[in-house]
This record gives sequence, structure tokens and C-alpha cells, in this order.
Amino acid sequence: MKTKPIWVEDGVVKIIAQTLLPEEYKVLDIHTIEEMWDAIKRLEVRGAPAIGIASGFGIYLGIKNASFNSREGFIEAVDRAAEYICTSRPTAYNLFWAADRMKKRAREIEFTNENEANDIILQEAKKILAEDIASCKSIGLYGAELLASCEGLLTHCNAGALATSEYGTALAPMYILHEQGHEFKVFADETRPLLQGSRLTAWELKQAGIDVTVICDNMAGLVMKTGQIDAVIVGADRIAANGDSANKIGTYSLSILAKAHNIPFYIAAPFSTVDFSIKSGDDIPIEERDGDEIRHFGERLTAPKDIKVFNPAFDVAPADNITAIITEKGIVEPPFKENLQKVFNEGKLKE
Amino acid sequence: MKTKPIWVEDGVVKIIAQTLLPEEYKVLDIHTIEEMWDAIKRLEVRGAPAIGIASGFGIYLGIKNASFNSREGFIEAVDRAAEYICTSRPTAYNLFWAADRMKKRAREIEFTNENEANDIILQEAKKILAEDIASCKSIGLYGAELLASCEGLLTHCNAGALATSEYGTALAPMYILHEQGHEFKVFADETRPLLQGSRLTAWELKQAGIDVTVICDNMAGLVMKTGQIDAVIVGADRIAANGDSANKIGTYSLSILAKAHNIPFYIAAPFSTVDFSIKSGDDIPIEERDGDEIRHFGERLTAPKDIKVFNPAFDVAPADNITAIITEKGIVEPPFKENLQKVFNEGKLKE
Repeated sequence: MKTKPIWVEDGVVKIIAQTLLPEEYKVLDIHTIEEMWDAIKRLEVRGAPAIGIASGFGIYLGIKNASFNSREGFIEAVDRAAEYICTSRPTAYNLFWAADRMKKRAREIEFTNENEANDIILQEAKKILAEDIASCKSIGLYGAELLASCEGLLTHCNAGALATSEYGTALAPMYILHEQGHEFKVFADETRPLLQGSRLTAWELKQAGIDVTVICDNMAGLVMKTGQIDAVIVGADRIAANGDSANKIGTYSLSILAKAHNIPFYIAAPFSTVDFSIKSGDDIPIEERDGDEIRHFGERLTAPKDIKVFNPAFDVAPADNITAIITEKGIVEPPFKENLQKVFNEGKLKE
Repeated sequence: MKTKPIWVEDGVVKIIAQTLLPEEYKVLDIHTIEEMWDAIKRLEVRGAPAIGIASGFGIYLGIKNASFNSREGFIEAVDRAAEYICTSRPTAYNLFWAADRMKKRAREIEFTNENEANDIILQEAKKILAEDIASCKSIGLYGAELLASCEGLLTHCNAGALATSEYGTALAPMYILHEQGHEFKVFADETRPLLQGSRLTAWELKQAGIDVTVICDNMAGLVMKTGQIDAVIVGADRIAANGDSANKIGTYSLSILAKAHNIPFYIAAPFSTVDFSIKSGDDIPIEERDGDEIRHFGERLTAPKDIKVFNPAFDVAPADNITAIITEKGIVEPPFKENLQKVFNEGKLKE
């Protein structure tokens, strides 16, 4: 069964407590915007699309528990909820994107009564969710065409259902191929330091009944060399206008290893990930995270406690190492600069 | 200060409890062969050369606490001690190598009395230690010539003092360069799953006052790309006749990344690591280790508890990716097959 990290059931928003995975599977009932704020803050919901969806539902919970009886009161309640939810993780772009969309929606409607206004906001949040499902599924269908003959796939980090609504991005073609009855084997890099690959990707693929094997990041070269990998597929956090793609640390190394073994290397991401204001990967700033992520695991030291560490969160797969970028609008092949622009201008690649 | 993992002080054998590093530095006093057996078994002493040294001292402790008053009794006591110590870690070649050497030594001498016999065995164990120090230092001196102009070095796993007697192999040139007053920076791959890089290499280099930074294995490509690495240097567990070198898992990937960035890639190992009976790396069997090393860290799960994992202990850097092999007999350059054979035949490379 495919995983959904966030959904609505009998008017209650439900999320999977991702920080407890893989040790425990627990669903949290989210009744208030404060509980949603806390869940985003504590990374129980993570991944850009999933955070956007959580933002939408959080705002709904905010106004549902508020009181207003005018258009102005309604808009004010939505704005207040939007402002508050955005403080949960101020660097998450999708939080703001979804909040802006809810604020815009609040201004569009004709106010009649509180219940109807609440419902319209709930419908908008559900629409964000539905659009993400459709987008991921489309990525999955395009990706499945490319990967149909593959017996072994390698992925890195978690660009899966847990980071989106359902399907994911890099994992979407795997879910589609599995639904279509294809047989294949997935290798999941554990993805140090936060182990999103071994904790999350392995967990959700196994839940879905897909054959998954965890390897340490340093084993990728060996599994490629021994002929076990027919394609590498990963997500992206940001794609430059020339196709250079920023993604979880280690993606750069993987792209070189794939090239050295003549293995296709695919990026899977919604088209909105392409940032045309960024010319190339050199202009993408690399966030450095707290060194204690490397020095500790739980309570245990994994390195001397005061040792210097370098902990970049991302690196960039250069366009030269990328075989194709799989988006919900179609499969973009090199030359990326021209072809990404063409999709932007024309809305879709011709079939 | 350089680290010594095993030494003799006032007639007592001392070892560093390596399983406690980096959380605690503790020296164990080893009074009996049983205590040494236990220390080897529990991996308090690790690394091929260090295990050989521990084997020698273990046999000494075995006969020191035994009673014999004839040549036959002496030889029997040494044989019994040798047989026992070899059961501590039956796959460790150096355990047997050192035990055979002690047994041979026992047969060479003219027996006079117990004290003198004990002392001869102690001297032989000390000789194994001294020879290893000399061999590592020689590797260090040759390596230091090659690396003298480097500002940034990358290493993997722990081929350092903690795995040998002092100096180590891959780390030996760093200790020599540091003694010579050179300034440089070392990046240590943490080396999943057992983290020998972050736990041991980082610890011992820091002890010695060498500038060391820990990175996750998947960050090696990025530090190379950003120009921070002038050379990669790693140890080897086994070198085939053609130069293919087996070493800790991840070494193969590193050798490809180094080549892609035009960074020299060096193997540092005693010449005895060359196994002329093995033609190429394809003939080196890769040991697979227990998957729980990947699924757990301490008490905590790092992956779903029943997930499939692939946990190869080693991989092979192909000769094509190796710039030179640094041994105590000199620096061996390509073509390795011819040049390794030449060193074997002539005992040493001409200067």
C-alpha cells in the first residue's frame, strides 16, 4: 500500500509522525493550527510539497477554531493563521506559497457565513493536496515509460510519498511500475547524516510491497560496478535554468559514479522546481547544517565530540551528468536550457 | 602526540580500549593471555598489524604465567599459547603469522632456564612491534615525499596508528609531514557502517595536533569539486599482482571520484599486503557482513528492523585509478604488474 503522509478523515487532519519512523508507525490527529505548527516545526511533516499541504490544512484549522462574522473578519482570520503557520519553518518556501494561495482564495470569495467560508478554505487545502497527487502521478507515469525495462534502480534520500502527498517524485515511477505489475529491485542509499533513505524511503517502499535493499552511501559504486543498477533516479530541491540540479548531499557524487558506469541518471521533480532566475548550479547557495548531525546519533557519539565537521545539506548534479529531467509536464531531455524554456513557454512538451 | 595502540610498560602490556573511542579514552592493563584473547575478540585491538603484535605479546603472557623446566616444556607452552590466541579471531591472518613466528623462535633457541626463555619470547614480541614501527615509518617517509606540497588530503576508514603500532600506513605520511612542520588539512570520511573514520582516524589525528575535518562518505565528491583535496590516500587489505587494491567499502567509489577530478589516488600498505597469487581484483572475494551493522546504531534503529540490506566489507580500487602504491620498500608506480614483481625480485626499488 502506498503511504500518504497527510490526509483528512471525518473532519480531522491526520499525519504520520515521521520522526518516529522506522521504529514506530504512529498517526497524529491534528485538531488545531498550533498542533500543525508544532508538527511542522518538529519535522513530523517534511518535504516541500507535504509542507505546502500541511500549511493549507493548518490555516483551515486556524479559522475553523476562530470566530468571525464578516468578510473582513474572515480575511483577517485567514491572514492571521497564514502568518502564524509560516513561523513554523521560516526557510520552507512551500509553506509561504500555500499560505499566499489561501490568502488569495479568501479574498476571491463572496462571504455569506462562517460555515461556508470555513468549507471554502478546506476545499482549497484539499485542492492543493489533490493537485500534488495529480502532479506526482504524472511524474510517475512519464518516469515509468523511461524505466519500464529496468531491473535495478538506485535512489538517494527520500523523494517519496512521505515527502509529498502520495507517489512522491523520484519514487513515483516505482509506484506506477509496481501498480503495472513490473518486477524490479530498488537500492536505497541510507543518506547520511539524517538517514532519510534508510529510515523513510526503505520504509515506504516496503509498505508498498516493492523489493528494496538499503545500502550505505559508500556502496553505490560497487552496486553499479556489479551490474545491479540500470538507472539512478533522485529528486531535486532546485533546478537551475541550465538543468543543474541541487538535491540532498551525495547527489553530485552519485551523478559522477553513474556517468562512469554509463548508467542513466534521472532527476524527477515538479516543474515548479525549475528556478529560471538561477543560471547555473554555481549560483545555488549550499546550506551548511549543524555539525552535531554528524557527531551524534541519538545519545551516542559517532565522532569525537568537539571534532571539526563539514555538513553541507545539498550538492548539485551538473546538467552534463543528467540524462533527463522528469516533470509532470513531460520528460525534458538535453539541451536543458532550451528545452526547459520551451516547456515554460508552451506549458507542456509536445507528445 | 602520535597514538600507540599497544605497548609494554614495567612488564605489563597496555592497550587502548578502541571500542570505547571516541566517547572514552581508556588504557587496559593486560596481565594474562586470556585477557589478550578477550581484547582481540572484542575488537579492542584491531587492524592487521596491531593484531599481529597483540598475538606476539599474548603468547608471551601465556608462557610467563606457565611453568616449564625443559626445552620440550617450553616449546609445548609456546605452542599451546599460540594455538589458544589464534582462536580469538580465526579470520585474522596476522594472528597466525605472528603465532608461527613465535613458535619458530621457540624452536631456535637453546633452553637454559624459564626466565631466560620468557625473556627471549618477550624480545621476539617486541621485535614484531619494532619492525612494524620501522615499516610504517618508512611508508610515511616515502609518502611524505609525494604529498609534501599538498594542502588538503582525504582518507577513508582507519589505516592509522590505531591499526598498527605507531604511524599507521595511510596516515603515516601525515604524521611525518606534521613532524616536519608542514601545514595541511585532512578530511576523514566517516566510513559507514562502522564509522572507523569519524571514530578512530579523526580521534588519532586530533590527538596528534593535525587539522582534521570529518565528512560523511557522500560528501567526498563535493569537497573534491570545491578544490579542497590535493590527494586521496588510503590503506589496503590485499593488493593483487596487477595492483588492484581491496580496501574498506567505499574505496572503489572514491577512486572513481578522484579520477574524475584529476586528483592523485594513493594506496599505502606494507609490501606484504601484495598477494602475488591473486592476478586481479576480480579474484578477491568480498566478505559480506551482518546487516544489523547498517540497521542499528547502538540501541537505535537506523532502518526498518527487518529491511533487506547489502553490507559488503570491502571493495576494490582498480589499478587504473591508482596513481602509486606506497610501501616500506619504496613508491611503486604503474605499470604495477611489472613494478611490483621487480620489487619482489630485487627487494627494493632503486632510489
